[in-house]
This record gives sequence, C-alpha cells and structure tokens, in this order.
Amino acid sequence: MPDLEPDEFRRQGHQLVDWVAQYRTSLPSLHVQPNVSPGSVKAQLPRELPEQPSQALGDDLVALLNDVVVPSSLHWQHPGFFGYFPANASLLSLLGDIASGGIGAQGMLWSSSPAGTEIEQVLLDGLADALGLGREFTFAGGGGGSLQDSASSASLVALLAALQRSNPDWREHGVDGTETVYATAETHSSLAKAVRVAGLGARALRIVPFTQGTLSMSADALADMLAKDAAAGKRPVMVCPTVGTTGTGAIDPVRDVALAAREYEAWVHVDAAWAGVAALCPEFRWLLDGADLADSFCTDAHKWFYTAFDASFMWVRDARALPTALSITPEYLRNAATESGEVIDYRDWQVPLGRRMRALKIWSVVHGAGLEGLRESIRGHVAMADSLAGRIESEPGFALATPPSLALVCLYLVDRDGRPNDAATKAAMEAVNAEGHSFLTHTSVNGHFAIRVAIGTPTTLPDHIDTLWDSLRKAARQSGA
Amino acid sequence: MPDLEPDEFRRQGHQLVDWVAQYRTSLPSLHVQPNVSPGSVKAQLPRELPEQPSQALGDDLVALLNDVVVPSSLHWQHPGFFGYFPANASLLSLLGDIASGGIGAQGMLWSSSPAGTEIEQVLLDGLADALGLGREFTFAGGGGGSLQDSASSASLVALLAALQRSNPDWREHGVDGTETVYATAETHSSLAKAVRVAGLGARALRIVPFTQGTLSMSADALADMLAKDAAAGKRPVMVCPTVGTTGTGAIDPVRDVALAAREYEAWVHVDAAWAGVAALCPEFRWLLDGADLADSFCTDAHKWFYTAFDASFMWVRDARALPTALSITPEYLRNAATESGEVIDYRDWQVPLGRRMRALKIWSVVHGAGLEGLRESIRGHVAMADSLAGRIESEPGFALATPPSLALVCLYLVDRDGRPNDAATKAAMEAVNAEGHSFLTHTSVNGHFAIRVAIGTPTTLPDHIDTLWDSLRKAARQSGA
Repeated sequence: MPDLEPDEFRRQGHQLVDWVAQYRTSLPSLHVQPNVSPGSVKAQLPRELPEQPSQALGDDLVALLNDVVVPSSLHWQHPGFFGYFPANASLLSLLGDIASGGIGAQGMLWSSSPAGTEIEQVLLDGLADALGLGREFTFAGGGGGSLQDSASSASLVALLAALQRSNPDWREHGVDGTETVYATAETHSSLAKAVRVAGLGARALRIVPFTQGTLSMSADALADMLAKDAAAGKRPVMVCPTVGTTGTGAIDPVRDVALAAREYEAWVHVDAAWAGVAALCPEFRWLLDGADLADSFCTDAHKWFYTAFDASFMWVRDARALPTALSITPEYLRNAATESGEVIDYRDWQVPLGRRMRALKIWSVVHGAGLEGLRESIRGHVAMADSLAGRIESEPGFALATPPSLALVCLYLVDRDGRPNDAATKAAMEAVNAEGHSFLTHTSVNGHFAIRVAIGTPTTLPDHIDTLWDSLRKAARQSGA
Repeated sequence: MPDLEPDEFRRQGHQLVDWVAQYRTSLPSLHVQPNVSPGSVKAQLPRELPEQPSQALGDDLVALLNDVVVPSSLHWQHPGFFGYFPANASLLSLLGDIASGGIGAQGMLWSSSPAGTEIEQVLLDGLADALGLGREFTFAGGGGGSLQDSASSASLVALLAALQRSNPDWREHGVDGTETVYATAETHSSLAKAVRVAGLGARALRIVPFTQGTLSMSADALADMLAKDAAAGKRPVMVCPTVGTTGTGAIDPVRDVALAAREYEAWVHVDAAWAGVAALCPEFRWLLDGADLADSFCTDAHKWFYTAFDASFMWVRDARALPTALSITPEYLRNAATESGEVIDYRDWQVPLGRRMRALKIWSVVHGAGLEGLRESIRGHVAMADSLAGRIESEPGFALATPPSLALVCLYLVDRDGRPNDAATKAAMEAVNAEGHSFLTHTSVNGHFAIRVAIGTPTTLPDHIDTLWDSLRKAARQSGA
C-alpha cells in the first residue's frame, strides 16, 4: 500500500510535532513578513513530481519547511502579527485537528459521522449559552448552530435561506431581479461576493449610509431605503449588520436595524466574524444587543477563538431554514436516520456536500483554555489596545483614525495642522513591516490611508506592543512627518 | 496566555499522534458501522462548557476519542469501508496537515502566504502533467489549477465563471432567467445545488437523456436540446459531463459533449471527482479523452488521491476566468504584489475569502507515495473490483447491476428468473453492515435498489474483498433470495 504503516507514522508524526514546537518557539526571532518576490518560491521547487516514494518523508518535509516554507511565509502565529485579523492556529486546536485527521470521518450526514455531528451540536448549543445568544438559537430552542468554513460562507448560506424564505418559488425559479440586500460601505466584501454568487448582481446590494460622524449603519437611513425600495416594487430579502467591521471595528446598531428590517420581513444576518467572540466576557455582552431579533449570527472560531483555520460558528433561529434552502437528496445519500427526522445532516447547512470533523478542534480549545482562559486572553488584548491608543493620542504626529474598537486600533500620521498625511502613514507602515518585528496592514478611513493594529495572537504580550510602538515612532521620524 | 507552551504541545502532540497510530492499527478489529441511535452521543456529553482549563488536555481528548468518538463513528479509514466513495485520510497526508496547522498561514492572498500559494501552483502544474491534462491547464500554458474544498465547490465556481463569460453584465445585473445548464440524472447532486445557489432555479437545469442501454449522457440528445433551447431564446451557459458518476461510475462522452457545447459557447466543466485520479495510469488515460476541449476539470484529492479531507484539484483553461467572476477588492486587501499582476491570489478562485495551506498535505502524498506508488494502489483497487465482479457474475442469485467501472461494482440480488429483488438486496446490504466487517451503501439503477461496492481505501487488500464476498453470500442465503 502507498501509505505509511502506523508505527512509521508514529515516528514521523513525532518528528512533525517536534518541528511545530520548534517553529513556534523560534517565531519571535523571525521577521514576521518574509523578504520574497513573485516566483522566488517556484524557482526553488522541481517542476516534475517524483515517481518513486520518499524513503524518509518526515525528513524531506522538514527540509521543505525549513528551506522553503519558513523563509517565504508571512508568520501569522508570530506575537508581532497585527495584520488583517488574527488567524490563530492555537496549539490546543492542533491537538484536536490531529485527532480529526486520524479518525478521518466525513460528516456530510449524521449517519456518516454520528459522533462528529452530535459533538458539534452540543458545542454550538453550549457556546450559544456562553456568548449569551438566546435559547432560540440552540437546537433545544428550535434553532441551532453549525461550523461553517468561514464567515464568507455563513453570509452566503444566510442569503440563500433568506431568498428561500422570501420566495418559496426560489428553488424552482431562481431569483427574479426584485431582491435587495442591505449593508454599508464597511461591510465585509464577502457580502458583496455572496450577492454576486447568488445571482443577484451588484445592483441588488444597497449601501446604507452611516450615522453622521461614525462608520456605523444608520438605522433611520435603512428604514427610508427599505420603504422606498418596497414602494418601487423591490423585495428586501436580507439586511446584514456588522458587529466589528474589518476596516475599523465599527459596530452597527443591530437592534434598530433589525426592527427596521422586520417590517419588511427581511432576514437579519449579524456578521460578528471577529468581534462576536468577545461576548464571552460579561462586560462585552453588549456586543450582542439586538441579536435576539436576528435570524442568523456568525462569529469566527479561527480568529479570536484560537481555532486553527477553518471554522466559523453560525447560528440560525430556525433549524429548518438552511435545509429548506439547500437540501437535495439523491438516492445514494438516503438513509434511515435522515428519514426518521430525528437527526441533523450538516450537509444541508452548507454549500459543499462533504465536511471534516471540525468539532474536535473546537472541543480542544474550549476544554484546553476553559471559558475563563478565553475571557482572560480577550481582556488582555483589549487592554493592550487601550494602552496603545493612549500612547497614540498623546504622541505628537500621531492620531487615532477612529476610536479603538475592542482590540483593533486604527491610526495615522498627521501633519502639524493635524491633517492625516497619507504618504507618511503608508511609508511608516512599510518601514515597520520591513523592520520585521511587527506586521501591520491598512484600511481607508474617510479617504485617508490608515494603519490597522489588530491585536489578538495568544502569544502577544504588552512587550510586543512596546516593540511595535517603538518601531512606529522610529518609522514616523524617518518618514519626516 | 490560554494556549499550550510549545514544549507541552510536543508532549501532548506525541500523545495524539500515538493515539492515531493505535486507532489505525485497531481498525480491522472494529465494526465499520457503529451501533448508535440519534441522541446517544449527546447523552454522553455535559451540556455546560468548562469554565476552567483542563490540566491534561491530551488525556481528556484521548478519553473523549476512546469513550465517545470511536464507538459512535462510521470508520471511513477501515479496510472494509466500501460505502459512498472513500474519503482517504492517509497517514502521509496527515504529516503535511500537522505542518500546515503548525505554520498556520492563511492563504487568501499571495502576500499572505507566498510559500503556500506557489507550492500549490507548482503541484497543480505537475499534477496536470502527471494526469495527462494538456499544457493549456497549467499556469505555464495560460490556465492553472487550485485546491478547492470539494468538487461541489469546484462545480459552483465553474458555473459562476461560466455565467460571467456568457454575460459580462452578470456581475452587475445578476442572472436573467434565460440561462440553462446541462447534466444527466446521474450527475452529482452538487451540480443541482450549484444551479440553485447561483440563483438559476431548478428549471434552468436540463436533464439530458442517456444513450440507450447506458447511464451515460447522449451527446446527440444534448445537441438537440441545445439547439431547441437556443432557438427558444435560452442561453446555454454550462454543460457538465461526468467521468465516473457517484451512483454507478458511468462515464459521459466528454469529447462529443464538448463539441456539442462549443457550438453554443457553453462552458464545459468535467466532474471527474472520483475517477479522474486514475488517469495517472497510462492504461486509464482514456478517462481524459476530450478533456482537452473542456474549460475546467475537477478531480478530488480527498478520494482516490489519499489526501485527508478536504482537498479537490480544479484546473481551468483560462487563469483569468475565476478572478474575473469572483474578485472584489476592498481597501484592506490591497497590496503591492497583487497590483503588480505577477501573482495568483487564490481567494479569487473560490467563494470563501480565507484558506488553509492545503498544499502541504498534497505534497506529502505525492512525495510519500510517489506517482508510481499511487498508480500501483489504483491498479490494485481496480483488480480487486474485477475479481469481485467476476465472482458476482458466476454466482447464482447475484447479478451485476451495471458493468464495473474502475474500482466501483454495483450489484443486486436476483430471483430465479433473473429479475432484481429489491427487498432481498436491501436486506443483504443491511445484514452485511450489521455484521460489521464491511460497510456498503446503495444507489438506484433503472429503478432497482443496487448495492455499491466502492473499493479504494489504501489498506484494503484482496482478503477484505474475500470477507465482503463471504458476508454478501451469507446475507443472500439468509434473505432467502
């Protein structure tokens, strides 16, 4: 057979685990961003695939990792990684992932993975409670949760459920061009992608203005748009408020938005991909205000819940909504358990048919860290962001681009008259990234280039914020702002 | 911090690797299908999530695996697993997956994972060569490959690219209700799901008749349907021939289908999810006949390419097709490498934004088994299927439901007059599954219940086929057929 014998896997598996431990230990000494140009990785690899099996795959793989992968990777798990949002592959979650791969169950149906399906259900119910989502989002309460691959996919399936609920003919006849979907200019691009994928076209996406002086959706403006669109024969199918936008961490007023949407029976999908997890802490429970009026709610496990990519939590108020929109059952998938109506077949909650047993990595994080461990870590990140924001506010030449939101700080460099200096801000970001201790990405705030500092790696400590701040000040001096 | 220290991960990681080795060793002694009823897993789990961290997560996780997961799982990696299609999580691929989790890079952009992106490109180019796909499907030839999560998603993104190519206004205006898509009644249900997701509605899906006496698409019937639909103002956007259907392994005539589709500029997507990998063997290279005329081609790594779920290979003839359909670039994703035009950002080749570094598990399989090892294993599976088919043909009371296709055998029990006995066939399948040495699923062939024997686990040996055959004959005697 072409596979390893289990005893050989034991030896080479230890080798890979040791490599991971060594890599994670070495991270602080590596530049976060690699010095690499397009094509330079390809140039190091043979074009032809090997005909014969390796005699020592573990050795070969470790060589590839050390010689090619590490020097040419952006180190997302580095304590100085402040780019995008964190994609935390905690070592806790990797234990669960090793087990998941070992079992190798494909959980499309309850009957194809009873353990995977029910562990997922129990975890999602427990997490709904821990976050303070209402009982209506649990299986016990008629709703239920699932693990999606990403918040992008959660937005898409929410939209599909919304289309079906809005028009029972959708499955047979498709979309009809009257559908409208509501978001803001700061809503994640995955919503616009979902609208495109679902065949609505960009024209169906209505960009709701912000409440003045903020980057949050104006519920009043939404109500006006809904009324006008409905009067013009449009059919509002979904409103997507965000709790913690990607750009600046802005928070839309979910309750008021949901109340406006309800009048038109539009589905309310709350995208709390990054920030939602913070509701584990009672002092951040306000993040969920209004979620009790929503139809679906998503927050990522693979961001601030420390679970290796990919895993997003998505809850719906009506457990039948996604299967009604998505289920198609050929003969080869029919089975007694499905026909009993007593089980959840998660294939009907997602676009792909197959699925891995993601529940084990979630289980490992929950049990390995404990809810109290997760809360402490989140609080630590928010405190670091507050500390950084304070330094920015009191430093000449720096300014906050927006008020800090939880553990996300947006800043720019400013001229003496206090106006943002785009060129200097961009140059400073590039200088920090080139220096290598920290990694930053950017966004645009009111047309100005702004640096985002997204704090959230489990290994990030106040020292790393000090280092970042030193690098930023040095870069600012050099940029001449 | 809430995560493990690397040294602690080293210890607990070894523990989990050892558990996997032990589990894989124990598989032959386990019943393939568990004896479990809806709710029985839930009943073993506490409802409340733990507040405090575990003091020994490795121990707790191993206990969960042994006490809850193993007794309540369908064992997909068991050598007696013949259900659905195999979802082979080879131990080779798990080595790569441990590394991928350790690096923890999120590969949405080239710049967010240069190594992951370029290793994937090189592997997909190399595999296109190894399979005998033309140079036009390689990056070197203007096309290119990507790793999708599943063939379902590959069909969906192919359809989206087809919609965009067929109508440049699609991104802005969405679908218009004139689109039609062509498949057969044996095409995988994921195509019907893709048509629904894309907003076309089931009415857009045209079911092309089979060539008489087969379960393969009739290219003549397709040509007629295309002509009639076009004359009626419909717009044929995609034709989806299958190489190896899920039900019976039927093979559509790709070349003739593609020639018919070309006249209407319909996109041709070849779904070879299960069978395509066999084209690694020169004697099965005929499977790709006509693929040189296709626009996209998919075959799964997580089936017969022994790679742990999830990973599907998808190639397109035009490297711009998927980005043109799917790209949306907010400010926070802009970067110099993307703007240089010299890199591939794989986010634009898929629906979700984020992605894991799946390339490492593919690399591990390719290098660990070698192309020659993969070929030998595929040949072994096909030989076992031929041997089983021979026994079925010569055994009174049994009959082949369809000619065997590669390593898939479909059979039923027949009465003395040679007519299929649905009740006896179903009873025999259930008896085999209850006995526990083997696991089978079913399909429908010309309205009759037929057992599928999908051979393809790397550990399956001729002995396991003997055991299956003994179980089937015993079950047939007991069913009284």
